[in-house]
Amino acid sequence: MANENINYDTQEVLPSVGVVGSGSFATAIVKMLVQNSKLVHWCVRNEYVKGAIERRGHNPSYLTAVNFNLENLQLTTDINEVVSACDIIVLATPSIYLSDAMDGLSCDYKGKVFVSAIKGIVPKVNDVVAHYLRNEFSIGFKCQGVIAGPCHAEEVAMERLSYLTIAAADEEVKAKLIRLFSSNFINVHSSSDILGNEYSAILKNIYAIGAGIASGLGYGDNFTAVFVSNAIREMETFLEGIYEAPRDVNESAYLGDLLVTAYSLFSRNRSLGNLIGKGYTVKSAIQSMNMIAEGYYAAQSIYNTAREKNLHTPMIDTIYKILYENKNPEKEFEKLTLVLN
Amino acid sequence: MANENINYDTQEVLPSVGVVGSGSFATAIVKMLVQNSKLVHWCVRNEYVKGAIERRGHNPSYLTAVNFNLENLQLTTDINEVVSACDIIVLATPSIYLSDAMDGLSCDYKGKVFVSAIKGIVPKVNDVVAHYLRNEFSIGFKCQGVIAGPCHAEEVAMERLSYLTIAAADEEVKAKLIRLFSSNFINVHSSSDILGNEYSAILKNIYAIGAGIASGLGYGDNFTAVFVSNAIREMETFLEGIYEAPRDVNESAYLGDLLVTAYSLFSRNRSLGNLIGKGYTVKSAIQSMNMIAEGYYAAQSIYNTAREKNLHTPMIDTIYKILYENKNPEKEFEKLTLVLN
Repeated sequence: MANENINYDTQEVLPSVGVVGSGSFATAIVKMLVQNSKLVHWCVRNEYVKGAIERRGHNPSYLTAVNFNLENLQLTTDINEVVSACDIIVLATPSIYLSDAMDGLSCDYKGKVFVSAIKGIVPKVNDVVAHYLRNEFSIGFKCQGVIAGPCHAEEVAMERLSYLTIAAADEEVKAKLIRLFSSNFINVHSSSDILGNEYSAILKNIYAIGAGIASGLGYGDNFTAVFVSNAIREMETFLEGIYEAPRDVNESAYLGDLLVTAYSLFSRNRSLGNLIGKGYTVKSAIQSMNMIAEGYYAAQSIYNTAREKNLHTPMIDTIYKILYENKNPEKEFEKLTLVLN
Repeated sequence: MANENINYDTQEVLPSVGVVGSGSFATAIVKMLVQNSKLVHWCVRNEYVKGAIERRGHNPSYLTAVNFNLENLQLTTDINEVVSACDIIVLATPSIYLSDAMDGLSCDYKGKVFVSAIKGIVPKVNDVVAHYLRNEFSIGFKCQGVIAGPCHAEEVAMERLSYLTIAAADEEVKAKLIRLFSSNFINVHSSSDILGNEYSAILKNIYAIGAGIASGLGYGDNFTAVFVSNAIREMETFLEGIYEAPRDVNESAYLGDLLVTAYSLFSRNRSLGNLIGKGYTVKSAIQSMNMIAEGYYAAQSIYNTAREKNLHTPMIDTIYKILYENKNPEKEFEKLTLVLN
């Protein structure tokens, strides 16, 4: 099957690649991959989505302006078809649906590489994707990758220059992923910090909710800047507490991703926080959004992890208490302002 | 004279304080100081501004919504009156007008503390304010302070919570400044890194021009996040090259100030860059703005310093070439995108 996948420009044989998921980031990833790959296998959520893409040439619900050449897509709703056909499988479902997708896996996946583009906690195991794949499916870190970096799907759709960081433990895997994703609008850099990249992508969603709450409460740009510069320091503390590694949190995969999420109007996590800051209850704020704000689900698990590891994370604690303990956002933020600097 | 200045709440005797300058940040500083000081000496640019403030109770040109109680102000156009009357003098002119103001200084200023709220290069000596005061006026670092931090004047005017960092070498000076500036909408933190704070406040204006150029050229949020996370790393390189000191560039005075300037709609440096990115010539972009974009003037001096010290600063170099060597923004940014990560 690998021979079907020849790069148009270089005639180079690329690994066969598939994507699981049909939300906005999954759709953006398929768009990135068809730049280089003749055929991308795509496991979408259900027959309706599959049929709609086949008829219209675009995802019916997300990034509808991205039109695909159907010759480049092998659509399915069965994860086994994608895993069987591909060397590399990119997982890009919302984190809460990952276990639904993976539970259907019955084919042989030994030696296949699973790359997570998911930025959240897997509720079933209350853990990050890297640990879930290793513990539940015996997929070792050598067969894993993480896609990180400031990369709003909406801008990928518009082919605006974006930078991805691809983390993998195995150098050969890393090189393959760089070749698959690099294009005229995607610059790819590599990292070996799988867990750090995965956790930072999760943490930044929680901080973005916090930045949104602040904005909703009426705090201004001066405060947001202080909030974000405290957040990157708290993130560094958390990452060092979880997994020590040589890393510079000011690299794009960490700080850049935090910035795009905390500052961008595209950010659903920031939007969720904004509604809560403006006085919506948490429940009604979640219900009013038709996209999943990963940071909400992640906050509980990350808070518990910080407590277990005895880490000093006043910002995560504040956001957790507002989201899960019904604490008053105004009062909690007043207390928080006293410990920021 | 010092006895006139008693804190309303604590009855504590505060040092007598004056401000030189009548732009937006100077006006914001006077607003901060009148929270604690019964009388603030204020040297404004000319008789028109003085008369207008006396008649209307607010600055006629900047932060016009900020109304002062005239009993709290001792207005003058003579810097000697302020310096003679005060223990602490805050310099808050645009950098290009500082030497005009200081050239008028003829009174004895020995032992007085001069605090720079200026975020730019003094053109007359092509150097930062701290060096200018030391070299031209023999005002040693012990008698100096720097006000830094993410603090748009417009938000101070609205009393939105802001954080200042005050850098001073002398601990007693630092303590006095913290007491003068702290209020219910200003949180003050202290630092000993005078030069680092001064240079970072200058550099961030240059990077904000760059962020504006990128935006004007059509780059999106994903790229801006990468740009800013590269900028903070380049800033760290520059600061270490200029003056080694124990500092965390992710503190609010460095990263926070960069963020507020690079992301905020209030930022005149970002606006200047945006016009240039959209195709205005540098000259016409400058002429179309009625406020001074400090980063433009600073870029030349900072570029030269980076070259003298042989520092790797591709972002500063790119912005300099667009501003001063008439290089094409689109082409220069295309080259820059290849070295960012």
